[in-house]
Amino acid sequence: MSIYRAPVDEMLLVMQEIGNLDQIAGLPGYEDATSDLVAAILAEASKLGTDVLDPINASGDVEGCVLENGVVRTPKGFKEAYQQFIEGGWNSMPFDPELGGQGLPWLVSTGASEIWHAANMSFGLCPLLTGGAAELLSIHGSEALKSVYLKNMISGVWTGTMNLTEPQAGSDLSRIRTKAIKEGDAYRISGQKIFITYGEHDFTDNIVHMVLARTPDAPEGIKGISLFVVPKHLVNEDGTLGERNDLRCGSLEHKLGINASPTAVMLYGENEGALGYLVGEENHGIEYMFTMMNNARLAVGLEGVAIAERAYQRARAFAADRTQGRGTDRDNKEAVAIIQHPDVKRMLLSMRSQTEAVRALAYWVSSRLDLAHRSTDPAEAKKAQSFVDLLTPVVKAWSTDVGVEVADTGVQIHGGMGFIEETGAAQHLRDARIAPIYEGTNGIQALDLAGRKIAREGGETMHTLIAEMHASMAEMDSSHARLSTAIDALERTTDWIVSNFEETPVTALAGSVTYLRLSGITVGGWLMVRLFEASKRNRDENPLLAERRQASVSFYARHILSQAPGLADAVLDGSSVIAETRIEAL
Amino acid sequence: MSIYRAPVDEMLLVMQEIGNLDQIAGLPGYEDATSDLVAAILAEASKLGTDVLDPINASGDVEGCVLENGVVRTPKGFKEAYQQFIEGGWNSMPFDPELGGQGLPWLVSTGASEIWHAANMSFGLCPLLTGGAAELLSIHGSEALKSVYLKNMISGVWTGTMNLTEPQAGSDLSRIRTKAIKEGDAYRISGQKIFITYGEHDFTDNIVHMVLARTPDAPEGIKGISLFVVPKHLVNEDGTLGERNDLRCGSLEHKLGINASPTAVMLYGENEGALGYLVGEENHGIEYMFTMMNNARLAVGLEGVAIAERAYQRARAFAADRTQGRGTDRDNKEAVAIIQHPDVKRMLLSMRSQTEAVRALAYWVSSRLDLAHRSTDPAEAKKAQSFVDLLTPVVKAWSTDVGVEVADTGVQIHGGMGFIEETGAAQHLRDARIAPIYEGTNGIQALDLAGRKIAREGGETMHTLIAEMHASMAEMDSSHARLSTAIDALERTTDWIVSNFEETPVTALAGSVTYLRLSGITVGGWLMVRLFEASKRNRDENPLLAERRQASVSFYARHILSQAPGLADAVLDGSSVIAETRIEAL
Repeated sequence: MSIYRAPVDEMLLVMQEIGNLDQIAGLPGYEDATSDLVAAILAEASKLGTDVLDPINASGDVEGCVLENGVVRTPKGFKEAYQQFIEGGWNSMPFDPELGGQGLPWLVSTGASEIWHAANMSFGLCPLLTGGAAELLSIHGSEALKSVYLKNMISGVWTGTMNLTEPQAGSDLSRIRTKAIKEGDAYRISGQKIFITYGEHDFTDNIVHMVLARTPDAPEGIKGISLFVVPKHLVNEDGTLGERNDLRCGSLEHKLGINASPTAVMLYGENEGALGYLVGEENHGIEYMFTMMNNARLAVGLEGVAIAERAYQRARAFAADRTQGRGTDRDNKEAVAIIQHPDVKRMLLSMRSQTEAVRALAYWVSSRLDLAHRSTDPAEAKKAQSFVDLLTPVVKAWSTDVGVEVADTGVQIHGGMGFIEETGAAQHLRDARIAPIYEGTNGIQALDLAGRKIAREGGETMHTLIAEMHASMAEMDSSHARLSTAIDALERTTDWIVSNFEETPVTALAGSVTYLRLSGITVGGWLMVRLFEASKRNRDENPLLAERRQASVSFYARHILSQAPGLADAVLDGSSVIAETRIEAL
Repeated sequence: MSIYRAPVDEMLLVMQEIGNLDQIAGLPGYEDATSDLVAAILAEASKLGTDVLDPINASGDVEGCVLENGVVRTPKGFKEAYQQFIEGGWNSMPFDPELGGQGLPWLVSTGASEIWHAANMSFGLCPLLTGGAAELLSIHGSEALKSVYLKNMISGVWTGTMNLTEPQAGSDLSRIRTKAIKEGDAYRISGQKIFITYGEHDFTDNIVHMVLARTPDAPEGIKGISLFVVPKHLVNEDGTLGERNDLRCGSLEHKLGINASPTAVMLYGENEGALGYLVGEENHGIEYMFTMMNNARLAVGLEGVAIAERAYQRARAFAADRTQGRGTDRDNKEAVAIIQHPDVKRMLLSMRSQTEAVRALAYWVSSRLDLAHRSTDPAEAKKAQSFVDLLTPVVKAWSTDVGVEVADTGVQIHGGMGFIEETGAAQHLRDARIAPIYEGTNGIQALDLAGRKIAREGGETMHTLIAEMHASMAEMDSSHARLSTAIDALERTTDWIVSNFEETPVTALAGSVTYLRLSGITVGGWLMVRLFEASKRNRDENPLLAERRQASVSFYARHILSQAPGLADAVLDGSSVIAETRIEAL
């Protein structure tokens, strides 16, 4: 049974009104991305999501993956779904046509990705990882490496993985121990990697692992790590598959959620050492990884958007269907659907308005990425890139926090049924819960925001964004008082981060997660207000949309943006309390 | 392996400083409950928790319960643990010695219950339900019924259950359809009940079900429901067990958490009808059930406290052990335990301070219950009962929300390991998630607070409490500005609820959950401040405690109480937005 219908009209509207789709379609190379084409793409993606990916979502969660004799069997239907996915060309959407891609804007593939993640988050992870690996290789790999691997990764005929984590090296990659010893043109890789998403599976004949490892004479720490391509099967000169490389899946993790996706312990070089091929130069692995990780972070943020949308749809359908209690009309004692009850309406509005806010932010940042890559105006491109850099950790962390919160509220709307696995609401909470953890925990995102993105440049880009928000609000024909208050709070806390980071970095960092949340709700609130203003202008054409946006933005202002002063208080006055607490007093 | 150590010293201190243990021990019938005895009881309970209940917590979650040929097999070790539990006399703690109980104050058995729930929430549910059923029977049952059932229920030789929910009757009990047809002195019961905790198990030879059902000529709705004792095995005149009654467990639910506790679908009267015995009079079942439900709500609130404490202990131990990243000292690049990182400290402080706050509230309300029952001063007893009535929904809902939030933060502290079931942090989140749902969803608690507890009496008790908070703060030698602000916010929103409930009840109800949260953080904040002030007075004796309390209360003020104005804004100005949103716009 399908639960999820992609909100295609809404997605397209957000692309147009927030993502400036028409402007993006005017960029060189993106000329095909007209609204009509994008609408057609989203409609097709929606069909694949509803007809193919969604029906195996719950069954995949129950069945999980099995490791037997070194082979990982994914749940029923996943392999076939993957085949349909790559045959439809979906894997190659954002890649350069010269490399076999479809050259569509990041904004558009963001929309499609939202659909995959919402229809089936466990499934969506596979192309997410392959895309990241392919991007990494396309930017930093040699022509030789690219000619062997890239085309098949972009088409999805082979999948890709990211091998960063080791038992002792999680958030702290400087502790990586996996070894790489040069042998001719290649390297012999040996070591253990954990938490490798789709590290082994039965979708494709080959898997291309991107592995961080250390050469024997590398400098200590983060600057001594190199990046290698380590294929499951070696590739012959003619492109056919050769023998198995010396690597295997040692075990699969038993996880809280995303159970249909295999999370593997990968063992490299138990015998002669796995053959690996250096990407770029030695000791620059982390640097390369980071180019990829930024887009992966946007993609994980999108998982938050997607699971929130799915949880909302399920909860709304349940609430409209479940009869319980009486209506509020004292003269009419008829039983009503629970959607009529004020607190259920509150929960649905909280779910929907926050989902709209995180989607708006994710799409806006995606469109900035397109501008950064393709704008012919260097100043515009630079500004767009600076917004992408600033907001990538916010998209990742805030959207995934919202994903968990919305999924949790969805469970609550279901009451007792929400706790029963059969209903499906609980799965969304379990699935959503990984997103604030992987691809850099949300705490790490906040350090990135406060340290690298705010303090390092004295808050310049944030101030530019704040000025842009003020300017855009000045043009609106209604005032948005709580948004103004939130922007002021964001400005004050930004200045505080800048001035504290130098002298008392620990204090600044102690406030970073709260500051990130404040950034998210404020910028998201600004984008919601823009959506609302646009819907007002088109009220005659679409009165229901205007009514919905009005409800969303009014709710969001009073229930979410109203938190801004308290968050600012916690940053400005509450961070030193954390910093000064001794470990003994914890 | 045991994770949890009961914080016995802290629990005793909170009983003394917040629960007025010395005063309680001065009440008639409670003379034995001296601090020394209570300390000894808590120490013994802690031993049982750590040695017996905790070691089967994770294994019980993995193993779950199995229904085979109508028999439910609980996980390995549970039956034996239950035997130890009742042999230790733990089941009978709060009951009247005349009925075979130990006659200890509710405050003291609250402490012991916290230990059971923290050590093993699935296990703790069994005595929780038995206690509720026994209490119900002891208050409303005839002497004949009591003489047959009560002694064995109080000792725990038989367990008890609550049978309220049916597929179409969850929050709305007026929709109950289970039938009761009079036959001689008894009734024949038939119908289906769902979500019956410990509805069937292998701990004991008999199970005493308290079942809500409807007689054929009963009035419609909530006023036509009667309460019956329906034993699994009929009881012979001599007290021995007779034949099986016509009831069975039809299936067990597959749940998100509390997997070691069986949640049964119970089928009554598939053949001749199950024999049931009326409790009290016909058509008063809901009224009787409510006397029990209030204490059950306090008990469920305590589950929130307990799971928060357990999650905190696990996360703190992990954070102290896990080395990752560098310290903040720029001259020292040594790797450090993550507990040193500011954001991990933030998370731990958030977990601990909120756990302290919900515990303080739960213990305070428990002690009011003792005063209400035993005080020789009628005015004192009445005031205490009014506080119990007012705050029962707050203890239930706020504590369980905090339980989920704290368990969720615990997962985050574990990073990737938090998502792996083996680690155990995820189980706490899964277990905690039921508590905001059962025993009346937290939304229902908020309706109870706003409607029955605040509006119906014009906010009188809340105003009395607010006055008491002001008076107590006036006696303190430090000021607590954010607490004052929060109390003001509570006062304004209380008046708003009162004045809106008459004219626009839907608007008042739309703000009820937010109002409940504001009530919880404010009253909890007041109690924390009292704990802090007490620790200051004893600083010379216990400087570390004073330091810990200082850290907790400072954090709580700036990160939790600082939310109060935003919550008030959401209530005062955000409720009408919810109330006025049309269903079509959701």
